[in-house]
Amino acid sequence: MESVERNDTLNPLTRELPQRVSDRIRDIVGERGILTDPADTAPYLSDWRGAYKGKAALVVRPASTAEVSGVLALCHQEGIPVVTQGGNTGLCGGSMPDASGRQIVLSLNRLNRIRNIDAANDTLVAEAGCILADVQNAAREVGRLFPLSMGSEGSCTIGGNLATNAGGIAVLRYGNMRDLTLGIEVVLPDGRIWDGLRGLRKDNTGYDLKHLFIGSEGSLGVITAAVLKLYPLPTEKAVAFAALPSPEAAIELFKHLRSLCGPRLTGFELMSRMSLDFVLRHMAGCTDPMAEPHPWYLLIELTDSSPTANLRELIETGLMGPLEDGQVLDAVIAADEAQAAALWKLREGISEAQNFEGPSIKHDISVPVSSIPGFIDKASAALSNEIPGIRLVCYGHVGDGNLHFNLSKPPDSENADFRAQAGRIGRVVYDVVAQFTGSISAEHGLGQSKRQDIVRYKSDLELELMRSIKGLLDPKAIMNPGKVLPD
Amino acid sequence: MESVERNDTLNPLTRELPQRVSDRIRDIVGERGILTDPADTAPYLSDWRGAYKGKAALVVRPASTAEVSGVLALCHQEGIPVVTQGGNTGLCGGSMPDASGRQIVLSLNRLNRIRNIDAANDTLVAEAGCILADVQNAAREVGRLFPLSMGSEGSCTIGGNLATNAGGIAVLRYGNMRDLTLGIEVVLPDGRIWDGLRGLRKDNTGYDLKHLFIGSEGSLGVITAAVLKLYPLPTEKAVAFAALPSPEAAIELFKHLRSLCGPRLTGFELMSRMSLDFVLRHMAGCTDPMAEPHPWYLLIELTDSSPTANLRELIETGLMGPLEDGQVLDAVIAADEAQAAALWKLREGISEAQNFEGPSIKHDISVPVSSIPGFIDKASAALSNEIPGIRLVCYGHVGDGNLHFNLSKPPDSENADFRAQAGRIGRVVYDVVAQFTGSISAEHGLGQSKRQDIVRYKSDLELELMRSIKGLLDPKAIMNPGKVLPD
Repeated sequence: MESVERNDTLNPLTRELPQRVSDRIRDIVGERGILTDPADTAPYLSDWRGAYKGKAALVVRPASTAEVSGVLALCHQEGIPVVTQGGNTGLCGGSMPDASGRQIVLSLNRLNRIRNIDAANDTLVAEAGCILADVQNAAREVGRLFPLSMGSEGSCTIGGNLATNAGGIAVLRYGNMRDLTLGIEVVLPDGRIWDGLRGLRKDNTGYDLKHLFIGSEGSLGVITAAVLKLYPLPTEKAVAFAALPSPEAAIELFKHLRSLCGPRLTGFELMSRMSLDFVLRHMAGCTDPMAEPHPWYLLIELTDSSPTANLRELIETGLMGPLEDGQVLDAVIAADEAQAAALWKLREGISEAQNFEGPSIKHDISVPVSSIPGFIDKASAALSNEIPGIRLVCYGHVGDGNLHFNLSKPPDSENADFRAQAGRIGRVVYDVVAQFTGSISAEHGLGQSKRQDIVRYKSDLELELMRSIKGLLDPKAIMNPGKVLPD
Repeated sequence: MESVERNDTLNPLTRELPQRVSDRIRDIVGERGILTDPADTAPYLSDWRGAYKGKAALVVRPASTAEVSGVLALCHQEGIPVVTQGGNTGLCGGSMPDASGRQIVLSLNRLNRIRNIDAANDTLVAEAGCILADVQNAAREVGRLFPLSMGSEGSCTIGGNLATNAGGIAVLRYGNMRDLTLGIEVVLPDGRIWDGLRGLRKDNTGYDLKHLFIGSEGSLGVITAAVLKLYPLPTEKAVAFAALPSPEAAIELFKHLRSLCGPRLTGFELMSRMSLDFVLRHMAGCTDPMAEPHPWYLLIELTDSSPTANLRELIETGLMGPLEDGQVLDAVIAADEAQAAALWKLREGISEAQNFEGPSIKHDISVPVSSIPGFIDKASAALSNEIPGIRLVCYGHVGDGNLHFNLSKPPDSENADFRAQAGRIGRVVYDVVAQFTGSISAEHGLGQSKRQDIVRYKSDLELELMRSIKGLLDPKAIMNPGKVLPD
């Protein structure tokens, strides 16, 4: 145990934890299951953007559900706060410990086996630490699709996807992570293991407990594994890029294409001209697919697994009428995979391109699809009134009613001045969201950054119910304190 | 108030309730909101099959959420048990009061407005007392589909569908009631109203409370309204009837067709030869579509909303290979709507046909789709061993892993003898279900008939979690006592 003592002496990480407790944790997870060297722990104590930083008494990396159970039982007994962490790609600081150094980071990145694939049942059982892309690949190897997909898929984990009920670019067709999950295994805050790993499409034998844990951001227990739904692998694809006069026209086109294409409509992404301008200005290899600028654009994707699908003909048919009516101003259809990828890059480059324009204030909101035009109108007017010259980088999964309503500073303003107004600007945006009975966090969760905001937008009763459920499942409040629930 | 007093004097219904309480309920819901005459209350005190009967202190019919709130606040204060009732079409006695006469039946059949239809958001807001078929029709009138569909749709209500997380014949494509619901309005047991009527595809702002109430069979509160998801109305349909040598072949065909047809595959219903025999013997106008008898059959339905779909060609393509390989023994494809209806009648007539063969013992179970053949083999062997000559009427939504594993008595046995063995037979079936990590109630809930059974099949921890949630939300245990949770 020499190395242990040396680490404990040298490393401020473990100072807040009694030796006897760190010894017992080491007994449970083994030497490989504990990180104390600052070079090793650094990636766990700062999020990928560097927006959130924290300290930890220990970084613990259990390799099995039993080890998670042992660690939580001990932490429950000793009253040690636990911050569960997946790929650390969240945007709201939900997996970052606080600055006290008293919290333990419980990283699940060693809990990463795919336990089972059942092609006839179209299910895959993954442990929480599996990287999303690895699960996608494992499904693809047996000719199936696991449809969750997002920019961070090479780093984010199934556990993080479950904890935040992740969304991404295929929700329109396949739903959120919640919809893609049939069963879960959970270690409760006191260390007991609930085996809810059922791979059933239908089960009505009492309260549905899994939905309590999914989306609870590590505040009610630790999800250690899940039964995920698989789908036929799409073999056909058509991608179009359409220019539109207004968000109203985009919603009309959505209604039209959804009726015409049914579930083939997989992607329906809106972007403003300013979003495209930023991409064209800053992202290498991106060009405007149209000769003239237009106020709004849609990226439209159809997919199908049936060889009889003629998706190109279908999308052409779908766009023809609206083009003749002037509801669509111009449209291009990708002729091959390279062109499709180039069109997607215009959409996917927005977030990065925005960084080149100085500080930005981002909002991940949703409203009913029918309220998208009204929301954009009202929120834009309110913001321009509040901060003249503010630049609206409005884009997102409009078929889900989800906009990334991001704001770049006025070109001639000071960065610090703009950043200082984030709270006030958020209030303006969220108040308009509330007028349309929308959500102030569509797919990113609450974490630490939004948990106070919900006091203004949720009823006292709903907050009371959330708090009482927290108290029921985690009476010692050791799970991810300072996240999700407002003070 | 003469009539009130007369009723109170004459009718045993209200004897168990203090006059002061029934007066206050009458103040809340008005004269039309209370039934006391035995001729009026009889339909609420016996289920549609006559399998369950009960007594009630009052039948209360609130016409608004506020009235439900008033009644529950009073019942909470006075400790009066409440049995919420929808269309009274359940199969497990979940909406029937007990024999004490102390319980109140809270019928929601006057709470039956469709509050809103939003075609662009593809949502419909229905109150709990809306008849399912009325909701389907309201959606159809605006060119949309509300996909929940089942035999009882002309009587069952949205509230009952939510309380039991109803399934039916289109789950394979559209999911259960839970999957079709975006938001709900709930009156808590103490009368407080939680407005969770959000029509959002994405919302990650805390714990998902709606999934606690959906499927809780009226034991945690009263769902008074819901935001339901709508879909494009299918305009194309193909229906095939295929004969197969075995359940194994059915699962192989399922895998093949699901990959080929994707979401077009809407119905995939298995039935044994004995199921078909019963239908042919007892149901008027039903004929065997094939020249020879075969051991197993599948009813397959494809639907699509796209005019470019050629479903008939697709199903022909899909069946051709398996026919050549002998995985499918014979197949017919409906040439028109009348033929499609005739094929569906073979499937939908089974339950009624079985009644002509004497008493039956029914099980609504699910297993992973891949375990269907193994389950049928093992359960059949166990039952034939237990009761020689027992007749297996095995059919169901096999694409969901859901079988109605029903049993008719041996032809030469006494009815009473067979009925007396229901408990023992259920145990045999459910033990095999458990071996395949299945569910003993796939789509009918637990109600009063199955609530004790789950003690054997659920972990103590899961039962403890269910009980503690019940205690949290309904501390006085007034909501549907004697249902769902085991003693």
